[in-house]
Amino acid sequence: MTDRPRIVIVGGGFGGLECAQRLARSQADVIVLDRQNHHCFQPLLYQVATATLSPADVAWPIRTILQKSANTQVLMANVTGVDVDARRVLTEDGAFDYDILVLASGATHSYFGHDDWAPFAPGLKRIDDATAIRKAILLSFEKAELAADEAERRRHLTFVVVGGGPTGVEMAGAIANVAHEALPADFRNFDPRQAQILLIEAGPRLLTVFPENLSAYAARTLKTMGVTVMTGVSVTDIGRDYVEAGDQRIEAGAVIWAAGVKASPAAVWLGAAADRSGRVMVESDLTIPGNRQIFVIGDTAAVRAEAGLVPGIAPAAKQMGAYVAEVIKARLAGADAPPAFSYSHAGDLATIGRRVAIVKLDRFELTGFIAWLFWSLAHVYFLITLRNRIAVAFTWAWDYVTFGRRARLITHLDEPPP
Amino acid sequence: MTDRPRIVIVGGGFGGLECAQRLARSQADVIVLDRQNHHCFQPLLYQVATATLSPADVAWPIRTILQKSANTQVLMANVTGVDVDARRVLTEDGAFDYDILVLASGATHSYFGHDDWAPFAPGLKRIDDATAIRKAILLSFEKAELAADEAERRRHLTFVVVGGGPTGVEMAGAIANVAHEALPADFRNFDPRQAQILLIEAGPRLLTVFPENLSAYAARTLKTMGVTVMTGVSVTDIGRDYVEAGDQRIEAGAVIWAAGVKASPAAVWLGAAADRSGRVMVESDLTIPGNRQIFVIGDTAAVRAEAGLVPGIAPAAKQMGAYVAEVIKARLAGADAPPAFSYSHAGDLATIGRRVAIVKLDRFELTGFIAWLFWSLAHVYFLITLRNRIAVAFTWAWDYVTFGRRARLITHLDEPPP
Repeated sequence: MTDRPRIVIVGGGFGGLECAQRLARSQADVIVLDRQNHHCFQPLLYQVATATLSPADVAWPIRTILQKSANTQVLMANVTGVDVDARRVLTEDGAFDYDILVLASGATHSYFGHDDWAPFAPGLKRIDDATAIRKAILLSFEKAELAADEAERRRHLTFVVVGGGPTGVEMAGAIANVAHEALPADFRNFDPRQAQILLIEAGPRLLTVFPENLSAYAARTLKTMGVTVMTGVSVTDIGRDYVEAGDQRIEAGAVIWAAGVKASPAAVWLGAAADRSGRVMVESDLTIPGNRQIFVIGDTAAVRAEAGLVPGIAPAAKQMGAYVAEVIKARLAGADAPPAFSYSHAGDLATIGRRVAIVKLDRFELTGFIAWLFWSLAHVYFLITLRNRIAVAFTWAWDYVTFGRRARLITHLDEPPP
Repeated sequence: MTDRPRIVIVGGGFGGLECAQRLARSQADVIVLDRQNHHCFQPLLYQVATATLSPADVAWPIRTILQKSANTQVLMANVTGVDVDARRVLTEDGAFDYDILVLASGATHSYFGHDDWAPFAPGLKRIDDATAIRKAILLSFEKAELAADEAERRRHLTFVVVGGGPTGVEMAGAIANVAHEALPADFRNFDPRQAQILLIEAGPRLLTVFPENLSAYAARTLKTMGVTVMTGVSVTDIGRDYVEAGDQRIEAGAVIWAAGVKASPAAVWLGAAADRSGRVMVESDLTIPGNRQIFVIGDTAAVRAEAGLVPGIAPAAKQMGAYVAEVIKARLAGADAPPAFSYSHAGDLATIGRRVAIVKLDRFELTGFIAWLFWSLAHVYFLITLRNRIAVAFTWAWDYVTFGRRARLITHLDEPPP
């Protein structure tokens, strides 16, 4: 139809979406492929998993977000490979030719070679993960109410979170909030405050991206909230209803995996060099070595920064997406290429509970309620649509007043257990 | 522990919940059993199915609703039978003795002997049904965007609703709204307004509980909204991607079943006499013949009223639940039994589209926008919690302004298709 170049972007996460949005007015046709129909605001996903927010509060149809980009087409298709020679992306629903390819296909959980643990310890990357974890947590409390004896009840009331990074800390804190604040009046046969929440981290401390004093603050806060923090303890086995960690066997009602991620198979699709986590090694302009037509960004790219690699967080992915859009626009205009990609780290935030967070920016640190306010404002601000900003702010405010009785639905009961 | 009588209520729908709430301060122990953890406000479920509301907007944990009833225990358990002689309810999670049993276990879809149609034409009774139908509808539009040719696209854009009662009319109207108002700007390869929405009713007219002039008004309104209304046409077969109706074979992207209901298996559990729909024939005080300890209420009871049987609608179930609570309280107090149950019919409401409804009360009829306002106020009023009243009112107002971009999430993609 046209001689306009065709840019195919794989993945509607933070990186892919930012890139697509910045190409909206370019002289190119853009196709965004994603196997889901929605962009998920992953930083708030743990609140869906712990029944504070609804899926629709943290996810939006990609095609609605890109609705006004007349040059952009959104297609729901599962990518299976790339034919680099033919410049073609292969999907379960046909192949798509590209002039320029941007792979922003993200990351998934890594069980460090123990994929057999996956059914018993779901991770938290997608909406469906969040509703599955919510179901596991809420069903444990339901089973505790029905339990025939104390040993069984104790097992149902034991929750294990594996991994002491931001997601693990958020999940452990949120489960403690649910047990201690949201549920106590709802049960007759036990006190939900008896729930045991264990946070297991193999390394020496939680939240290693933060300075030691903030890690220690997070651990202390979790303890006061009723979470048992176990650092320096490795998980050796996970099965139905149990975790083996160190020399202990822990009987558990629900286990949540927050310990590791691995990149999407972009490196395999390309036959490109990858690091240990499967991330594609890219050049300083985020193309792959020897192929200027293919960019890799976000969690699926290994990008060198001043201190090691660029971290796998939303702001980094957005910066890469924006950068690649600039490179592409310069090419389309026949202009000089922008200088090499350079990552700017704004800071780190982690929320610990319903009213506590830690914040480390370049110049200052915050802890406690003021950090939580900062975290809340930052997250509401970054939520994509006005509608969701209002809805999430409203839900949080209501939750704050009522101690959170919302969204506690167990769905998809008919699905067989693992 | 106590000599207090034990009342077991099976089902946390409108009837069971009303009964439990009215027994909250009685001198009895109450156990509510439900296989779900939530009460679902079924009259709004079609809005979850058509992606306007989220599941958490129309459902609440039963134990939260009954939280303040200190004499009441809520247990999530799947009832499998009743041992009438031993006065015991059997569940997958153990047996529960009762002194008085109230069966309020509701109804499910009936495919009139064609249960093999079920996987291809889901009905709308539970939250999971609604999200499954939402997935089918939204995936059809996604597939239409990917379609290789016009015939395939046309199939994906054909939606068939079987059954012209209130649910069928609501679903057909809501799908038309989605296609004509919410989606047009989102797709590049077709105009969602091309979608064909067929409403098939075997009888001579839609909405037979309403007077003929209102039925005709509903049919006319649906036609102006782009729905093809086919009355007097019987469905003879349903399979993957097709419906056979009259002498036509209709290729369809999604089929929704709104044609029939059958009672829960309460009659089978009891070995009691039932009508053609499986409803238990009850006495004038809603007990079963020959057993004063067992009450059956709501959609699973066949109750004689002035004109035929009491209809299977929420207000009727609530009246029965309230009545049975009074009978039980009179017995506990050693007082005279209340007079026979008498059903009071307040009227009928049906919404047709985003701004149109019909209302038939005892004294007057309403149509159009004013009827829709009446319908909206009535439904917001009956939503159980203040929280949800505000959230739903807010969502509706927002939806009205923005033409509804919310909750359009396709979830549970990993589940195999039928």
